[in-house]
Amino acid sequence: MSEGPDQIDLSRVAVHTITCKPLSLRDLCEGLSARGFGGVSVWREAIDEAGGTAEAKAIVDGAGLRVPALVRGGFFVSADPEERATAIDENRRLLDQAAELGAEMVVIVPGSSSDVPLAEGREHVTRGLEGVLNHAENVGVTLALEPLHPMYAGDRSCVNSLAQGREICERLTGGRIGVAVDVYHVWWDPDLEREIAALGKAGLICAFHACDWLSDTQNRLTDRGLMGDGVIDVCGIRGMVERAGFDGDVEVEVIGERYWAGDQMAYLDQIAERCRSAT
Amino acid sequence: MSEGPDQIDLSRVAVHTITCKPLSLRDLCEGLSARGFGGVSVWREAIDEAGGTAEAKAIVDGAGLRVPALVRGGFFVSADPEERATAIDENRRLLDQAAELGAEMVVIVPGSSSDVPLAEGREHVTRGLEGVLNHAENVGVTLALEPLHPMYAGDRSCVNSLAQGREICERLTGGRIGVAVDVYHVWWDPDLEREIAALGKAGLICAFHACDWLSDTQNRLTDRGLMGDGVIDVCGIRGMVERAGFDGDVEVEVIGERYWAGDQMAYLDQIAERCRSAT
Repeated sequence: MSEGPDQIDLSRVAVHTITCKPLSLRDLCEGLSARGFGGVSVWREAIDEAGGTAEAKAIVDGAGLRVPALVRGGFFVSADPEERATAIDENRRLLDQAAELGAEMVVIVPGSSSDVPLAEGREHVTRGLEGVLNHAENVGVTLALEPLHPMYAGDRSCVNSLAQGREICERLTGGRIGVAVDVYHVWWDPDLEREIAALGKAGLICAFHACDWLSDTQNRLTDRGLMGDGVIDVCGIRGMVERAGFDGDVEVEVIGERYWAGDQMAYLDQIAERCRSAT
Repeated sequence: MSEGPDQIDLSRVAVHTITCKPLSLRDLCEGLSARGFGGVSVWREAIDEAGGTAEAKAIVDGAGLRVPALVRGGFFVSADPEERATAIDENRRLLDQAAELGAEMVVIVPGSSSDVPLAEGREHVTRGLEGVLNHAENVGVTLALEPLHPMYAGDRSCVNSLAQGREICERLTGGRIGVAVDVYHVWWDPDLEREIAALGKAGLICAFHACDWLSDTQNRLTDRGLMGDGVIDVCGIRGMVERAGFDGDVEVEVIGERYWAGDQMAYLDQIAERCRSAT
């Protein structure tokens, strides 16, 4: 833990629904509220499970929680122009849904396609974001562009570093866009501290996602670790984003099958403890 | 396939033993020789299977094949200074073994440890290489430093880009060191073309490894693809290294469990075909 920032107050921690996938939205929100967490970031699957956006909002509001993010839109890359246009339409609807839910942001997974070279894909992402930026402004929801780890370059994201995320945001005009810094995706980056500082200077850090990289990780989709169980200096990276001016929520997003097998309320206790000891 | 270079002549293609893992070294070498391949890069496991270095050399020589590389040494990163010293000793012995085998290079996997921050790990790698560089000169074997994909940063390599590999080589004095460009590890790098050109300018490209990234890849260890089965523009990257002055072997290194199940001689035919059509 390098240059440790202040210990986190749980009131500024939000947990992503996927983190406790086995729980219903209602049970998760009650569990979070009882432990003093401040928010919940909601995956679309959790809205479906709750029976719709209005129902989900009622649950979240009833628990007194904020919603940093609705997860997830984007997927702007395709060799087919019609598919690209459809993606823009879908993202507009997702922004509406986020507004209805009271979410501050929509997380944007950039997208990638085996038919589209990565550099060209980044053009699709830029054009896609451009196509929804006005709508984001109109509904008051921020687009959180999330660079994904290079191991997703083949199927999910042609934006694989903070630098690339910043470059795309800087090409767009309009304030409701920023970059989501997820430690899982960026921890290995030799330019990490410098890039976080550059993002901060440009006013572009809109989210901070915490989890860990397990050194014996078994698959690239659902084997992320809880903070403290892996190799990432999560606390050090939080220090970087806070020195760069970020004072928003710490979002705990652990897509980790290993943790779904156990008792989820005990897991929430553990998450709370790790927010204090390893984040 | 962008700016395609000339079609490869198989006489400048070597296949790594791991590519056809089910085959004995003898069967692999006979299969390669019969098809006109020029060489075989030998993993240590294949030497053990053959009964020792002298036996392996007899097999390779008998088939009329060259040996671009002995695979693999390195693993220089540890929080324990004794372990680091042991790694240097082991790499010296590996260089001796490579000389005995008649291999041009030893492939260096840099190493990484959950106890050692990545930047510090790169110091260990630099010091480790420094500790074997004279010996490499003495035995006439080149150290091929291989940057690995960022998804190995937690357990196998703190050197995750060509730029980092070049920086380490440039800090060392002595000619018998270079960077192995493996398309699997570097294809996603937005600076790829520029970095390959910089490596070439510095005279530091010592190897080119070909395989593919399967868009539905299931694990990060043994699910690599044959050229043409995935998303990498292998031919385009070969063009980059050749424009940068590289004229050495194309080494086919497919660590791909999917392919080990089938008939390996038919697979060698397929590899030959893909060297022509997709490399």
